[in-house]
Amino acid sequence: MASSIPRAELERLLFDDAPHGDLTTETLGLADRPGVMRFAAREKMVAALTAEAATILELAGARVELCVADGQSLESGAEILCARGPAGALLRGWKVAQTLIEIWAGVATSARAIVEAAGAVSPGVCVACTRKNIPGVKNFAIAAVKAGGAVMHRLGLSETILVFPEHRAFLQNESLADLVARMRASAPEKKLVIEVRNASEGAAAAQAGFDVIQAEKFSPMQIAELAAATRDLARPPVIAAAGGVKADNARDYVLAGARLLVTSAPYHAPPRDVSVRISAE
Amino acid sequence: MASSIPRAELERLLFDDAPHGDLTTETLGLADRPGVMRFAAREKMVAALTAEAATILELAGARVELCVADGQSLESGAEILCARGPAGALLRGWKVAQTLIEIWAGVATSARAIVEAAGAVSPGVCVACTRKNIPGVKNFAIAAVKAGGAVMHRLGLSETILVFPEHRAFLQNESLADLVARMRASAPEKKLVIEVRNASEGAAAAQAGFDVIQAEKFSPMQIAELAAATRDLARPPVIAAAGGVKADNARDYVLAGARLLVTSAPYHAPPRDVSVRISAE
Amino acid sequence: MASSIPRAELERLLFDDAPHGDLTTETLGLADRPGVMRFAAREKMVAALTAEAATILELAGARVELCVADGQSLESGAEILCARGPAGALLRGWKVAQTLIEIWAGVATSARAIVEAAGAVSPGVCVACTRKNIPGVKNFAIAAVKAGGAVMHRLGLSETILVFPEHRAFLQNESLADLVARMRASAPEKKLVIEVRNASEGAAAAQAGFDVIQAEKFSPMQIAELAAATRDLARPPVIAAAGGVKADNARDYVLAGARLLVTSAPYHAPPRDVSVRISAE
Amino acid sequence: MASSIPRAELERLLFDDAPHGDLTTETLGLADRPGVMRFAAREKMVAALTAEAATILELAGARVELCVADGQSLESGAEILCARGPAGALLRGWKVAQTLIEIWAGVATSARAIVEAAGAVSPGVCVACTRKNIPGVKNFAIAAVKAGGAVMHRLGLSETILVFPEHRAFLQNESLADLVARMRASAPEKKLVIEVRNASEGAAAAQAGFDVIQAEKFSPMQIAELAAATRDLARPPVIAAAGGVKADNARDYVLAGARLLVTSAPYHAPPRDVSVRISAE
Amino acid sequence: MASSIPRAELERLLFDDAPHGDLTTETLGLADRPGVMRFAAREKMVAALTAEAATILELAGARVELCVADGQSLESGAEILCARGPAGALLRGWKVAQTLIEIWAGVATSARAIVEAAGAVSPGVCVACTRKNIPGVKNFAIAAVKAGGAVMHRLGLSETILVFPEHRAFLQNESLADLVARMRASAPEKKLVIEVRNASEGAAAAQAGFDVIQAEKFSPMQIAELAAATRDLARPPVIAAAGGVKADNARDYVLAGARLLVTSAPYHAPPRDVSVRISAE
Amino acid sequence: MASSIPRAELERLLFDDAPHGDLTTETLGLADRPGVMRFAAREKMVAALTAEAATILELAGARVELCVADGQSLESGAEILCARGPAGALLRGWKVAQTLIEIWAGVATSARAIVEAAGAVSPGVCVACTRKNIPGVKNFAIAAVKAGGAVMHRLGLSETILVFPEHRAFLQNESLADLVARMRASAPEKKLVIEVRNASEGAAAAQAGFDVIQAEKFSPMQIAELAAATRDLARPPVIAAAGGVKADNARDYVLAGARLLVTSAPYHAPPRDVSVRISAE
Repeated sequence: MASSIPRAELERLLFDDAPHGDLTTETLGLADRPGVMRFAAREKMVAALTAEAATILELAGARVELCVADGQSLESGAEILCARGPAGALLRGWKVAQTLIEIWAGVATSARAIVEAAGAVSPGVCVACTRKNIPGVKNFAIAAVKAGGAVMHRLGLSETILVFPEHRAFLQNESLADLVARMRASAPEKKLVIEVRNASEGAAAAQAGFDVIQAEKFSPMQIAELAAATRDLARPPVIAAAGGVKADNARDYVLAGARLLVTSAPYHAPPRDVSVRISAE
Repeated sequence: MASSIPRAELERLLFDDAPHGDLTTETLGLADRPGVMRFAAREKMVAALTAEAATILELAGARVELCVADGQSLESGAEILCARGPAGALLRGWKVAQTLIEIWAGVATSARAIVEAAGAVSPGVCVACTRKNIPGVKNFAIAAVKAGGAVMHRLGLSETILVFPEHRAFLQNESLADLVARMRASAPEKKLVIEVRNASEGAAAAQAGFDVIQAEKFSPMQIAELAAATRDLARPPVIAAAGGVKADNARDYVLAGARLLVTSAPYHAPPRDVSVRISAE
Repeated sequence: MASSIPRAELERLLFDDAPHGDLTTETLGLADRPGVMRFAAREKMVAALTAEAATILELAGARVELCVADGQSLESGAEILCARGPAGALLRGWKVAQTLIEIWAGVATSARAIVEAAGAVSPGVCVACTRKNIPGVKNFAIAAVKAGGAVMHRLGLSETILVFPEHRAFLQNESLADLVARMRASAPEKKLVIEVRNASEGAAAAQAGFDVIQAEKFSPMQIAELAAATRDLARPPVIAAAGGVKADNARDYVLAGARLLVTSAPYHAPPRDVSVRISAE
Repeated sequence: MASSIPRAELERLLFDDAPHGDLTTETLGLADRPGVMRFAAREKMVAALTAEAATILELAGARVELCVADGQSLESGAEILCARGPAGALLRGWKVAQTLIEIWAGVATSARAIVEAAGAVSPGVCVACTRKNIPGVKNFAIAAVKAGGAVMHRLGLSETILVFPEHRAFLQNESLADLVARMRASAPEKKLVIEVRNASEGAAAAQAGFDVIQAEKFSPMQIAELAAATRDLARPPVIAAAGGVKADNARDYVLAGARLLVTSAPYHAPPRDVSVRISAE
Repeated sequence: MASSIPRAELERLLFDDAPHGDLTTETLGLADRPGVMRFAAREKMVAALTAEAATILELAGARVELCVADGQSLESGAEILCARGPAGALLRGWKVAQTLIEIWAGVATSARAIVEAAGAVSPGVCVACTRKNIPGVKNFAIAAVKAGGAVMHRLGLSETILVFPEHRAFLQNESLADLVARMRASAPEKKLVIEVRNASEGAAAAQAGFDVIQAEKFSPMQIAELAAATRDLARPPVIAAAGGVKADNARDYVLAGARLLVTSAPYHAPPRDVSVRISAE
Repeated sequence: MASSIPRAELERLLFDDAPHGDLTTETLGLADRPGVMRFAAREKMVAALTAEAATILELAGARVELCVADGQSLESGAEILCARGPAGALLRGWKVAQTLIEIWAGVATSARAIVEAAGAVSPGVCVACTRKNIPGVKNFAIAAVKAGGAVMHRLGLSETILVFPEHRAFLQNESLADLVARMRASAPEKKLVIEVRNASEGAAAAQAGFDVIQAEKFSPMQIAELAAATRDLARPPVIAAAGGVKADNARDYVLAGARLLVTSAPYHAPPRDVSVRISAE
């Protein structure tokens, strides 16, 4: 199975948890008995990292039939995968595979909720997850975000332009328009994004020519104010609501005029439960 | 600084986020301007992974003064570290270092809350976090658990013995006493732990000689029942409450007789906010 | 020294060439004699990867004084670095460090020539190097491109949108305007780039709303034709000349109206000679 | 397919370019449409790294039929490989696989040209490529050199003996004959090679007993002089012409008496064009 | 084949020995000729790392039929595996695969001898190998220990509690009973092990409540003394003989009352010879 | 300290043994108490891998003073290094550092014994260790061999030519002289080595022109026979005794005429004891 995660990285997950096999299985002497293990959704969830979980089980020595695809909405009870093989293989790969799906399905499900809340108001709104995911598992986070139907706000620092106030602290009195001109010249293929702290800052940035105004911790009302202030520009910017955006306020932000919702909320979503049934064959 | 995380792994975190530097900084041409960046607790928290965050900033090119040690309780406003160096270094390492502390301080703070809740009842109770942490960042999770004052239940599958019902599914009608005898013979340096689903299973396992009875999803009342049933054994087992244990019910489990609280709850704790102030020098 | 290349990767370069030291040095028994090694430009060049070369020499056991910064234009004879230490260290790190600078200074120098040729006509023109660099050494290529004053067209496939005819081969009869609308909706923070094969395709793409028209293998005359056809649009696109752009035709492309020059030419530039003088001390 | 490159290294190439898939493909929603991709030689070339390119496409999720073997001479139009699979797989692996072949076929083709020029004069002459290849991709360079029919002069510093003037700078007044005696004693399984700057140095080294005289930047005339001076020794050395040897002067060096041509020229050869046709199926 | 060693690590073994193929095979031009290679035991041995050796040969390009399983006792002459494929594949993987089995079968065979010597006296005695294996190949050592029928004393420092005198050097006058109480509180799932230097130290530690008394360099007589002194405790400890335990004194230690034999001896056992026959097909 | 082992590899050794610190130290709560740790030779030995052991201790958090250099002969009692720092650092790095020196000093000491036995007869004889070292720790083995004063016979398969009978099994009836001619043509910088099974095979190979005759499992008498048979050739070959060569028969082989002793014996030498004293400061 082609995956969005390097195979060597998946192998590392397995060996991180079971570097020398399952001691309990070995001590009990049951490693070679044939068995079957079934993963199913114990609650509603959006599937994520399922192919990777299957690969981990294969690396542990099982044969796996995968029943879903990432991004699919699962009802409680829906079968996710079925693995067969020696007990030693099943018991070795079990928890890593299960935990992998549980955690990232949590992220995907949360992202999907925001996507759906926003989409219910306006189909053209986009939900973007930030780069503030857990350092060390970015690859998994990105796959889960995509499974949820959201996109990545930024993969990292090296491929996008987002001017923070912290950048501007190092610039003396340069006008926003000059900033834009300088950045357009050397980054003509990038949209220019700027983080602002209030509507008037946002309006000024829009007038100076920024493509995206990232409104940090605005209330929906402030978003509306910013939208009103920029609506009549020749090239109205994309207004991005960021900071505190969640499924339950997404609607308000979209109604207020946000064209893009930037959020870290899915990364802190609780895992979704996956049931595992193991039996001898 | 000696760390519990390999330096190469910390370097990878930095390069995952900024493989080719901060494009915004470069486009603005401000990489070489000197600056200072201060991290402080924006809310109460237990410090975690702070030395590692400092190392990341050093790898990015800053000089760092670390003001706290992992495990320390911080009040809101407490300074965590201060980094100095060229703006390019500060802006490159900023978010990874910040996010690292925020996420793992969340875990440490949550673990500490359970430890304190349990300790308020009985100083001899131990809180152990499970191996169900996020695959790929186990090293960080373990460091945070320890910073919180908890211990690891198991590092993984290869160094401890924990008999799940799923193991027993592969054993035909072997008595628990026979299981114990077999396992004692080949694992005389390990405590024998077994997961049980109700008090009578637990009592039977204790009589058979298991050292630790891991009571899965018991109510405090069921724990008390198990405690009563095993109290008078020649070698009463350690009763471990597992499944659903949190700070707000820890007290009840300890009062009921649990000697060990096994929990995954800290892994899903929200991050703790770290404020970052960056200024030119 | 903070570098744009992970230290572990630089260490690998040294060990790839000298996994077990310099056999000649060992056989001659001169490893411990003190010496000095000086790197200088043997011809004009733009410095690149010099800090990394210095780090390699340090990893080999030398003390290094670095005399230049990446991006600096060097005249023939300009000193680049001076390393001191035992002969074994100097002779072990010598060629890897030298070759590293020679190859990437070649790339940086070539990129600089295009940048200067374009800049002589119009200061607002940008030179972007493609992702068709040598697989396996992308990090170095990007550092060299930046040293030359150019930018990266794309870091890779995952962070930018560039519609190739090969993508369109999988889309049946969808209008360009529909494509643009769909992509705007889900990628509001990305500029939409499209590769076209002739001016009329380019004009159509511009009218459909693409931000950047990548004109593949156009003559300057064709670029002028495209520029004329798009000049009066409400939002005229960035015209990017790609395919065959070099220092000696850059001027023509810019004069014709290209706002961006996309090129792989620097990757195939010959290395720039670095002289190395080693002597006993 | 067994390869001369570790699979993990090939996987890294793919993920370096497309760490999170092809954003364009995803944004357009065409990842699952079936397609076919054909690589063919757009000009004459010697095939190199073709099995590795095929493996990369397989890792991306395609099924690949490889039509050539490394080292084979291809006419313009010759099919190299045919890949089938979902569009997402084809578009993800495309450029890395193509670039890999293009660059290293360039090296192999250049090496072959020198081999053939030398071989046309004397079948017993050998062409050896230096270790001055691009740091970080030595494995690929060596595979390409072999595909071209040349051999490696040295893999690195640790397995061969080549006395540079820079080594001798650390030795005070020791005669060449003494050097040879010392080195023979401790390296009886190695040929002793020495780099010389003129014919008289070369003749002296030959008389002292060196096995190979590496004549650095000699003209063919100087090679002939050296050959004449060493022809009548009891054990005439191998004369190796090095520095500036290329396909168009190889003949002269061989005619002058060089038994070995040492060259870095192939590493700087331009890539050979590979055409790629992608279509829906 | 699922293995206890990550595949990437096995691939590294092959490339460590043959990073660029077998030069002899290439120079002779015989890489493509079909052949067969058979591994057999040249002396009695316990099989170890055989599946990993097979994987290495597969990575080199051969098809392998594995005839034994790790842990199996082989008589001299017993076939271990049979590999078929091009000569280049067989000759490339040959020695690494052979050496891997030879070395670790030596360890397994030595461990088995101690296990059998101890088991002949008492079936309930356990043999545990120390963590003093060769740094860098711990994974292989552990697999070989298990193949021999022994267990690991400790995987490392992080998962077990063993109080050395060197730990106690940092504790001032704290009684052993207090130590035990403190450690029980925070490590209720771990057995408490202590290293002692004589029987009276051992008896004191047992009385203080340690679970396992590791008797370092005791004679069997001293073990008997310790056994006598602890036999009548309410919870008699496990007595572990450590330091100098080998196959030929195992019996004495068990007879004296050791319940556990801790040994590093197998790590220094000589390799067991594996014969290799290669022929053309 | 510059080392012959990549720093990342040394870090891995530390983390293999103590991935999450020393649990005993942590449980006892003594990690921060200051201490000193001294390594000394407990028996005569040749120092090996001492700088690497020091680096490991530094990575664990100690300050280290190194008292010896690799290759130095140590008397019993000689101090090797002294480390200072918190108890947690000393106790964490202790055994890995100690074991590293013990094992490889064993190899170096054994190699030195053979070198000295051979050198006592003839100073011009060379001792070469084979590539049959433990897969996975080749870097360490090579460093130890050099510390012992021996050289490497071959680093691996890719840089030397050694014709085994197993190669010849794939060649039909080609004369040895033809083999030599073919190999000379394409490998003019390599000595041609051949393994032979008896003196007449050896004499034939010498006459055919091989540079080194590797006499596999010859008695000294057979070596003398081979020496006599090849002594009067125009270019007498180097006679290499291989298979069963050890310190106690080295003299006989040299007296019989072997110019090179090829041996794997040092790899199976027992470790040399290093005493470690740890105390609080």
